[in-house]
Amino acid sequence: MITSMAAKHAIWPQEEDMIFNLSKRAQICEKEKGKENVINATIGALMDDEGNLITLKSVYDEYKNLDNKQIAAYAQIAGQSDYIEAVKKACFKEFMPNSSIRVVASPGGSGSIKLAVFNYTENQETILVPDWYWGPYKIICEEINRNITNYELFNKEGNFNFESFKKQFMDLSKKQDRIFSIFNTPAHNPTGYTVSDEEWDKILNLCKQTVKDTNKKITLFVDVAYIDFSGKGANDTRRFFKKFENLPENILIIIGFSMSKGYTAYGMRSGACLCVSSNKDIADEFYYSCSHSARANWSNCNRGAMELLTRIINDEEKLKRYEDEKNSYKSVLKERAKAFVDEARDIGLDILPYRDGFFVSIPCKNPIKVCEKAIESNLYTIPLKMGVRFAVCAVNKEKCKIAPRILKEAIDLVD
Amino acid sequence: MITSMAAKHAIWPQEEDMIFNLSKRAQICEKEKGKENVINATIGALMDDEGNLITLKSVYDEYKNLDNKQIAAYAQIAGQSDYIEAVKKACFKEFMPNSSIRVVASPGGSGSIKLAVFNYTENQETILVPDWYWGPYKIICEEINRNITNYELFNKEGNFNFESFKKQFMDLSKKQDRIFSIFNTPAHNPTGYTVSDEEWDKILNLCKQTVKDTNKKITLFVDVAYIDFSGKGANDTRRFFKKFENLPENILIIIGFSMSKGYTAYGMRSGACLCVSSNKDIADEFYYSCSHSARANWSNCNRGAMELLTRIINDEEKLKRYEDEKNSYKSVLKERAKAFVDEARDIGLDILPYRDGFFVSIPCKNPIKVCEKAIESNLYTIPLKMGVRFAVCAVNKEKCKIAPRILKEAIDLVD
Repeated sequence: MITSMAAKHAIWPQEEDMIFNLSKRAQICEKEKGKENVINATIGALMDDEGNLITLKSVYDEYKNLDNKQIAAYAQIAGQSDYIEAVKKACFKEFMPNSSIRVVASPGGSGSIKLAVFNYTENQETILVPDWYWGPYKIICEEINRNITNYELFNKEGNFNFESFKKQFMDLSKKQDRIFSIFNTPAHNPTGYTVSDEEWDKILNLCKQTVKDTNKKITLFVDVAYIDFSGKGANDTRRFFKKFENLPENILIIIGFSMSKGYTAYGMRSGACLCVSSNKDIADEFYYSCSHSARANWSNCNRGAMELLTRIINDEEKLKRYEDEKNSYKSVLKERAKAFVDEARDIGLDILPYRDGFFVSIPCKNPIKVCEKAIESNLYTIPLKMGVRFAVCAVNKEKCKIAPRILKEAIDLVD
Repeated sequence: MITSMAAKHAIWPQEEDMIFNLSKRAQICEKEKGKENVINATIGALMDDEGNLITLKSVYDEYKNLDNKQIAAYAQIAGQSDYIEAVKKACFKEFMPNSSIRVVASPGGSGSIKLAVFNYTENQETILVPDWYWGPYKIICEEINRNITNYELFNKEGNFNFESFKKQFMDLSKKQDRIFSIFNTPAHNPTGYTVSDEEWDKILNLCKQTVKDTNKKITLFVDVAYIDFSGKGANDTRRFFKKFENLPENILIIIGFSMSKGYTAYGMRSGACLCVSSNKDIADEFYYSCSHSARANWSNCNRGAMELLTRIINDEEKLKRYEDEKNSYKSVLKERAKAFVDEARDIGLDILPYRDGFFVSIPCKNPIKVCEKAIESNLYTIPLKMGVRFAVCAVNKEKCKIAPRILKEAIDLVD
């Protein structure tokens, strides 16, 4: 009797998704004990104060108005040309680098990471990510036989640990000619950290130094999934894009754009991969490499979502309506995060430096135990390798104020 | 100066998609000369008699009625559980094999092919497809370093060339323990051929013989993208599913399901990969292998499309409305194809054996020249390796009757 048909590389532990499991447990608890008595901080999507998914009216009114044909038709492999232009505007706004930029559509931000990792690393190479990172980066890498190595994201002052980054970067550059590093900024998942403009300067200077050895090829992947919920206005967390102008040709910037969070369009699976290069040929190569991968992985992407973004971005009135509505929820998010962060400070709960975004992370030694302990007080969070993740995006302000104490007690008890 | 940053395996010829190019040329010609004077048979989607994309009202009324949340929310990695059940019903109807069946959602049928090829072949292995095959099979394979070998699809009588299939199959089984073969049936793209039930018996008997050597692992991938536009009723081209019951454990059937054609939902990118095995462990392994790939390639799929299928399939009235509407277009398709096939026979144009589906293929020696010659008479088709493809799905009956003569003249002149 045989018990396996899959190829060697395709066999993985048969585990259910932990986030999904905890979400389900939280929902069951909400039904049993009443929503008002449960804090469900497991969900990575923006929820209203009652715990219902927020869907921007300015987005869905537009979507429902699309002609059926605009939803039904196949899109081009790399995305409709007007979508490509809309993505550039939506992503860079006033800070479009004066560089060669090419864009290939992808199913959400995840698809863009896949395109970049597959096409800009060789088999068995190692990719550099911080020690606090979004779990699927590892899944994307291990699926195609790439490894991950970590640097410490934070120094003692709670800023970007450039020294640790530099050390791992230099070590890697001794082993490989090709360096591929993923930055999830602004509003990092899971910590809410944003790399500052000065920190970007240091990172880019290190890259420039390194590529003086012309055998070196550096790809920086910038995952901006949360950009539209970061910063004070639309601009202060976009200025860094301008730093990608005039880089040496052997530094390639790839930006992972997603409609999921910014447009509350998670389920539509619409995003894109944008490259920024000072060399047109390298940008063109990116377009053809990623287009081949698109064809070979999912063929083409959600056409209706492309039409939707195009219409919003290219119509001043619609754009304003969207921005206003989105920004109202951004304010809600900021208030919630402030409630959590302030209370954590007041009661002495140690949290990671939060700037922006959907999540706050709390470092601890035994994340699973801490999670389970907090569940006894009806608080559901997600255990990570080095802490637990609390989704301020999904929990109202009152509950955000209550949660730190539960977590503090759980950590004091079991950690 | 460097001119390349992509990894070695990621560099491809920088070509625009030929189908897209010819489509564009046809559209320009339609604008210049009037739609009524141009035959645009390049498009792989069902068009009305005026050349406009058909979108089923029974599908899009339902879609537009979905609550925003049902479109906006993330889906589970493998697909919502009710979608998974709906896919099984939509795919098998009355002919669900009494076997272990697991399902993983995919972006369209293309995504399901990717999942199957990646997880059920080893690096550098060779995959068996007929000489007439849908081009992207090769792109999916070459992207991940798999090769393709061909058998002759047709024998002299215009039936499935079992002898050629058997020869290539046996040759391959001497070189590899693992055999992976793709069948695009019913209503094969690009020829419109459907493997008969008797031909399936022969294929499956050969597989059963081969796996008596227990080192052998055979995966048959059945791409049923066109199934809902095949056969006389809903049943006659689904009976073969029952033959997948009780196969030896080292024969795995994977079915590629797509909403694209059957539900005129091309742009939604919704499909699934279904496995049929007589061993529960092997089916479970399929689920986890494909789920890992899903997470690592596109994360999750279009949630609204899942809700849509679920609602249509689980509501008798909605299902009937959908079936009636879809079948009315199936009749139109059959009439068009008949007009083309009858005229071809009458004027002596040699075409490949058409049974069903969106395309008819015309064998010739110089497909590109024949295409270009036909364009001089305002007929746009797609050149393949061994002939040209005419999309009866996209051209009205009158034009379907005119086209064979133009193609005959083009072939007589340049081939």
